[in-house]
Amino acid sequence: MKKNLVVGQSGGPTSAINSSLAGVIKAGLESQNIVEVIGVRYGIEGILNENFVSLSKFSDEKMLDLLIQTPSAYLGSCRKKLPDVSENQEMYDKIFDVFEKNNIGYFFYIGGNDSMDTVNKLSLYAKEKNYDIKVIGIPKTIDNDLYKTDHTPGFGSAAKFVANSVKQISHDNNVYDMDSVTIVEIMGRNAGWLAASAVLANDESVSADIICLPEISFDMDKLIGKINEKVKEKRTVVVALSEGVKDCKGKYLCEYVSKTAEQTDIFNHKQMGGAGKCLENYIKDDLGYKVRTVELSSLQRCFSYSGSKDDFESGFKIGYEGVKKALEGVTGVMMAFNRISDEPYEYEITYADVNEVANFEKMVPIDMITDDGFGLNEKFIKYAKPLISGEFIPQTENGIIKTLRV
Amino acid sequence: MKKNLVVGQSGGPTSAINSSLAGVIKAGLESQNIVEVIGVRYGIEGILNENFVSLSKFSDEKMLDLLIQTPSAYLGSCRKKLPDVSENQEMYDKIFDVFEKNNIGYFFYIGGNDSMDTVNKLSLYAKEKNYDIKVIGIPKTIDNDLYKTDHTPGFGSAAKFVANSVKQISHDNNVYDMDSVTIVEIMGRNAGWLAASAVLANDESVSADIICLPEISFDMDKLIGKINEKVKEKRTVVVALSEGVKDCKGKYLCEYVSKTAEQTDIFNHKQMGGAGKCLENYIKDDLGYKVRTVELSSLQRCFSYSGSKDDFESGFKIGYEGVKKALEGVTGVMMAFNRISDEPYEYEITYADVNEVANFEKMVPIDMITDDGFGLNEKFIKYAKPLISGEFIPQTENGIIKTLRV
Repeated sequence: MKKNLVVGQSGGPTSAINSSLAGVIKAGLESQNIVEVIGVRYGIEGILNENFVSLSKFSDEKMLDLLIQTPSAYLGSCRKKLPDVSENQEMYDKIFDVFEKNNIGYFFYIGGNDSMDTVNKLSLYAKEKNYDIKVIGIPKTIDNDLYKTDHTPGFGSAAKFVANSVKQISHDNNVYDMDSVTIVEIMGRNAGWLAASAVLANDESVSADIICLPEISFDMDKLIGKINEKVKEKRTVVVALSEGVKDCKGKYLCEYVSKTAEQTDIFNHKQMGGAGKCLENYIKDDLGYKVRTVELSSLQRCFSYSGSKDDFESGFKIGYEGVKKALEGVTGVMMAFNRISDEPYEYEITYADVNEVANFEKMVPIDMITDDGFGLNEKFIKYAKPLISGEFIPQTENGIIKTLRV
Repeated sequence: MKKNLVVGQSGGPTSAINSSLAGVIKAGLESQNIVEVIGVRYGIEGILNENFVSLSKFSDEKMLDLLIQTPSAYLGSCRKKLPDVSENQEMYDKIFDVFEKNNIGYFFYIGGNDSMDTVNKLSLYAKEKNYDIKVIGIPKTIDNDLYKTDHTPGFGSAAKFVANSVKQISHDNNVYDMDSVTIVEIMGRNAGWLAASAVLANDESVSADIICLPEISFDMDKLIGKINEKVKEKRTVVVALSEGVKDCKGKYLCEYVSKTAEQTDIFNHKQMGGAGKCLENYIKDDLGYKVRTVELSSLQRCFSYSGSKDDFESGFKIGYEGVKKALEGVTGVMMAFNRISDEPYEYEITYADVNEVANFEKMVPIDMITDDGFGLNEKFIKYAKPLISGEFIPQTENGIIKTLRV
């Protein structure tokens, strides 16, 4: 019997996540073996609530193109992690009842490592209970922290936004004839891939002078010393700072101030500053330089406007290939990129046992980091360069990016 | 006797300020009546220090194109305001000695209203002392707050960045199935033109739901009430907030918390939050919704990558025309845009007595603001739409914008 395909999105949004959705939709609509292509809203929660939407309108290529350039999860997302079967068998029964009732034979879940845990659990349960459903994970995260894949869709565009922002902020920081430091705070709670990408801004005149990653335990004295050295050398200095930077005891940089000071407002809200604001205060106090902090904030994960062409194209392909694999009978896997060569950049799309991906985080390897811990070497640049290459030029109307909403 | 031309930049940087510089350089190099085209570094301070650089390399069109797309003041900037002649005649004598010594017959100053004050003072002094020098101001500010011109170069690109950011952040804010508010904090200490531009993001599905401008006295209860009403209506709400919002007593929103609470860190730094962070705390406390603040920060004035084509082109032209006027003998003016029609958008380049521009700030007129004070009407949209139109596509290399440094 021919079955329906359901696709959902989960975890933090990215600017390219809908290109993978578009790939899944296109392959699903093209297949003679799939009855209907259906979207589930708000991830696995939408399965439990049967919150489905038809995606048949995307047989129109123009609509598909708009979907691709729309930032953030078109179908909505959730942060729900499935409990173990032993803890809540009922929930699994409910999910598979919904699958059966809606004649769903293919379930695609686009997300990061928590989402891959869901893919893992559902595919194992399906096998155990002999449910005829293929469950496949499509990787997505700006953090680039998934194992078993060369990189993750969403990372390239975020890395490109980070590098271009750092380069342009470096110009902004350089206009006055005075010593000054600009801190650019970049996302990445545990893995520093995105902060590392600041190095891609570097050319003969502009640079992310100091890059701080969560992979390297930070030492405030050493960092302040390095900043001072750089200011003496070149006056205007840019520090690319991962929000997840922590010391050798695992204490986050952003906790340095708030734990030792009363920082509450009139409603007793704890005023938790970011890592950047904290470092800013240390620099002002210890060195007296003019300092400014720029938090790239959610822009780094939603600014499709300056996306990486490779990211958008490969994100589409990995979704498309996922459907092909499911139709061949593959299940319980995460689709993945396998790099064949750096230059010219070549890759193939493959897949990995999702069990080896779920719940793990891939860090920036030490051999990509310079000896002093404040920079990235050629190995990282070789790795990251092709991922940010090419210009994704979105359709605009009167200067504004065109987007879609459900 | 043929004379040299000197050009300088002053005030806050913008992403398009170098297009006006390029226009001045091009016209200067083309003229048979100008010996040399010279740049002065760090504004008027560079005149006092004789900190000059030759700009002859820009006879190469490729270099000129790179200059145009380089964000922030290529020549560097300063915040120096000239004292009145009566206070410091010596400084004026020094400046005019430098002009004479270097055979300078044309001085162009690209900047905002403080810079126009400098143009005014220098041109008046030159007339009084019969110095043969033409002094001309070229407008520039993301704030768009100069009188006697339809708009200022730099505003269009910043407004385009604001509107596209708000649109994309609105998608980011909409992914989870929950009530939430995102505050986007936008530059503009006194004039709200840039925050107002958030309205340009609006289409059938996405909007800057509430826009708060410095032109309208804010009332915390009314604002909180409006936010609550909007969340009840549509769940996910975006507030575009000017950093300069103040109440009827002139107290800034960002002062609301810090004056009534002890917010110091271990070094006794006063933790001055921005307007966004302050409003965030009020919303959390009064309404309990999930809130996030995104400060667009210096990105809004340096992100050339997604600039407005009209802004870059007209910025070039106004610099170019300025030189033509100086060669005709005009002095003591600010070059300006005079709008002929909104649709199709047409303008001419003219000039205004700089005396009528210096030290004044043009606010968003009340008749462009909706009756409830939380939005902009069609009149504003008609005005601003052509200024953000067209895509400025910069040259890139491996996904990174190419730029120049002195």
